[in-house]
Amino acid sequence: MKPLTYAVIGTGAIGGYYGGILAHEGHPVHFLFHSDYDYVSQHGLRVDSWRGNFVVPESDLHYYHTTEQMPQCDVVLVCLKTDNNRLLPDILPPLLHKDTVVVMIQNGLGIEQDVAAEFPNTQIAAGLAFICSTKIGPGHIDHSDNGKLVLAPYTDRAMDTLGKVQLDFKSTGVPTELIASTLEARWRKLIWNIPFNGLSVVLRASTDQMMSESSCRLLIRELMTEVIEAANSHPGVSIEMEAADQMMRFTDKMKPYLPSMRVDFEQGRPMEIESIYSRPIAEALQVGYNMRRVSMLEQQLRYLQNNKQNH
Amino acid sequence: MKPLTYAVIGTGAIGGYYGGILAHEGHPVHFLFHSDYDYVSQHGLRVDSWRGNFVVPESDLHYYHTTEQMPQCDVVLVCLKTDNNRLLPDILPPLLHKDTVVVMIQNGLGIEQDVAAEFPNTQIAAGLAFICSTKIGPGHIDHSDNGKLVLAPYTDRAMDTLGKVQLDFKSTGVPTELIASTLEARWRKLIWNIPFNGLSVVLRASTDQMMSESSCRLLIRELMTEVIEAANSHPGVSIEMEAADQMMRFTDKMKPYLPSMRVDFEQGRPMEIESIYSRPIAEALQVGYNMRRVSMLEQQLRYLQNNKQNH
Repeated sequence: MKPLTYAVIGTGAIGGYYGGILAHEGHPVHFLFHSDYDYVSQHGLRVDSWRGNFVVPESDLHYYHTTEQMPQCDVVLVCLKTDNNRLLPDILPPLLHKDTVVVMIQNGLGIEQDVAAEFPNTQIAAGLAFICSTKIGPGHIDHSDNGKLVLAPYTDRAMDTLGKVQLDFKSTGVPTELIASTLEARWRKLIWNIPFNGLSVVLRASTDQMMSESSCRLLIRELMTEVIEAANSHPGVSIEMEAADQMMRFTDKMKPYLPSMRVDFEQGRPMEIESIYSRPIAEALQVGYNMRRVSMLEQQLRYLQNNKQNH
Repeated sequence: MKPLTYAVIGTGAIGGYYGGILAHEGHPVHFLFHSDYDYVSQHGLRVDSWRGNFVVPESDLHYYHTTEQMPQCDVVLVCLKTDNNRLLPDILPPLLHKDTVVVMIQNGLGIEQDVAAEFPNTQIAAGLAFICSTKIGPGHIDHSDNGKLVLAPYTDRAMDTLGKVQLDFKSTGVPTELIASTLEARWRKLIWNIPFNGLSVVLRASTDQMMSESSCRLLIRELMTEVIEAANSHPGVSIEMEAADQMMRFTDKMKPYLPSMRVDFEQGRPMEIESIYSRPIAEALQVGYNMRRVSMLEQQLRYLQNNKQNH
């Protein structure tokens, strides 16, 4: 069987880890770099991982500045910040053959719909990364905890390829799960993202600080409940309330972590408010559910985003 | 007519201004000082006010270290932080004759009930200060904007004296208003305090910063609506929705201001979460109204209070 070829678009905390570990295990992975290009061309890609550190040396690394220079691939892992998805119409086409599956490893809602609108003949899937990972320098990823990747086909024909992707990740030791509904998969991830990303910014807190204070735990639990109720207002989505307790336990066991939104805020980058908050709030309203607490958190984040020069 | 004699308990941003201006106009006012005692014994009490700066010189100032040294007074203005009300059973008695009216110039709810429980035979009133005032140094108050004092009798016999207090303040130019219901007066003040005190801490924002960002304005307006709906759930309280718009206009016209809770937070002092948030939330629940957004703000403040060593 011919091995799957991969492209990684957005080689940061997520793309650097998942693409990196595939490359480290010998899979053919082609990485798009932006500001880190010069650095990795000398030093390769370095991943400090709780599962074992590794480097993909410059001699083994397929690194590119533009997608025009890259080969067509079987799987494209899109790991950009969602704000940059507006670049996809320009950068995706050189990577696509007729069976390419584009896997959107991003947080939020409506991601696949938007890509499908631009690429109606392309196979698309969702990827949800349950991982503590941060880019701490050029071509340098710190993977401090967890790492499970949940995959869900958005278009029917993506399923076959996702099965093969699962096998490839199995060879690396990265746990994966394949689930049928993109919508449910994305809402399940929001149970974690909505409380922890936003509160980590508003309260200037790491996950362990939030989890160790009783009022904040209660608030997190209430936000999770709102997300589950909003999710379950969609026909065909059914998430058990127990999922909130699972997320609480998952976070209790996690090493202290600053979610990506907090890192973006600290570094003066735009926060993913639109995909993680505004879009889910709007979609829930469409099916008649008003996420009041989540909306309040969104308003606070918008204030902080718009006033960040003052902080 | 014999002039009213005043005692000021808690000579800070509020007591220093209202007591100071009465003393400056020649009314007999006796001030309790704590950490500022030595300073005012040399420099007097200084008020920088947008209505005109003044100093009550040491030679004219009646200043005391303990209430045992103070005379009984006709009116006691209690301007402590509510956390310190637990001290009142010790410090109030020396000041009280049979007709003394104790005016609780504090924010929050349930203030008069608590004092009445300790002093069942004492006349009690509420004072609500619509003022931008900050203690900026020992015996030094900065009064940057507004200043209206709303008075409301909690016990029936307090009304007569409050009328005289109104006349005294009229001689100083301080606007006052006398209203019948302590409960309604306190809820009216909460329409301002609940959004601005809490958000100024959580968002690290001054009033003008909050008012100039559209998401934050919307959130403030929604919090105000919740407070008015909670207030109106009480029998006998009827606050028009227009009160929220009035508070928005009032704040739009205000000079940039850091509410007292923000100042307390910055200086590492406890915040008045209990009286401004927890008690109103509990009282509203008692009459069947759940202030969801206000509860979320309370939870965020409790987190910040309990984790302030991290900030």
